[in-house]
Amino acid sequence: MNVQEALFTRRSIRKYEPRPIDPQMVETIVKAGMYAPSAVNKQPWHFIVFSREEIKEQIIAVHPSSKMLAQSPVSILVCYDEQLQHDEGYGAVDCSAATQNMLLCAHDLGLGACWVGIYPRMARVEALKEIFRLPEHVVPFSLIALGYPAEEKPVPDRFRPERIHFEKW
Amino acid sequence: MNVQEALFTRRSIRKYEPRPIDPQMVETIVKAGMYAPSAVNKQPWHFIVFSREEIKEQIIAVHPSSKMLAQSPVSILVCYDEQLQHDEGYGAVDCSAATQNMLLCAHDLGLGACWVGIYPRMARVEALKEIFRLPEHVVPFSLIALGYPAEEKPVPDRFRPERIHFEKW
Repeated sequence: MNVQEALFTRRSIRKYEPRPIDPQMVETIVKAGMYAPSAVNKQPWHFIVFSREEIKEQIIAVHPSSKMLAQSPVSILVCYDEQLQHDEGYGAVDCSAATQNMLLCAHDLGLGACWVGIYPRMARVEALKEIFRLPEHVVPFSLIALGYPAEEKPVPDRFRPERIHFEKW
Repeated sequence: MNVQEALFTRRSIRKYEPRPIDPQMVETIVKAGMYAPSAVNKQPWHFIVFSREEIKEQIIAVHPSSKMLAQSPVSILVCYDEQLQHDEGYGAVDCSAATQNMLLCAHDLGLGACWVGIYPRMARVEALKEIFRLPEHVVPFSLIALGYPAEEKPVPDRFRPERIHFEKW
């Protein structure tokens, strides 16, 4: 897939076929996250690849917008390490860019993906930290549910020329 | 360019040729930002496209990592509107994904680009707000310097398998 097509046709996909995903594909998606830019190139991220029903159920029980995980054969938790980030507040900015790289990579590989937000909702951060037994200094930022798409979504028009300004506001 | 190539060869480019950039390309890059996912699809962003020497000089005077702007024929300020974001803290997450889309789009179009961080450094946020005369509720998030590349950078190995965990930490 070319870049323009990927950028302009990617959608949040929440329904998945039950077929499994090749672990090599999952690794490529995580690698795409690792190639995102990060403040002062600190690359403060960690990724937890998970499939266990028990974990998915625990997340769904505490996170109201995560029901699509039930059908996802493989999902990824994107985290940042407060001890690795450039400075306070940067880990989340870096993980957001990494998450976007991963969504584009999944789309390119023919997979559907959905970004499930954790940060900045601190109640979700704490609950996910507990479920994945993260060290105190590791902050769960986003979940990416993956799967072969079982829904098709049209390409919306999101171009808003009124949001473009020239030189000053 | 295909997606994998874009994801894995994109680098921060800080040296640019003096030749101008087609305004249509700039519009495509901004559009790529608008096609990023955002929390609850709020699309809380604004973009200021600028070229004026005076503005670039003002930024360079207050932002220590923005010297590449001097050579950039066109740069873009990515902002979010606090009144449009889903909730506090989300505008920055959304703008980070938008910035990453724009960097990949620029790379695809044969341009070099560099993400110059503003948020979460509040002194920079206030200074840039002043320079661009932004309304009180509009927060400058990042600057993207653009230009035809006048430097080549090798592709680094950023794959860190030790940052991948399975099922739990």
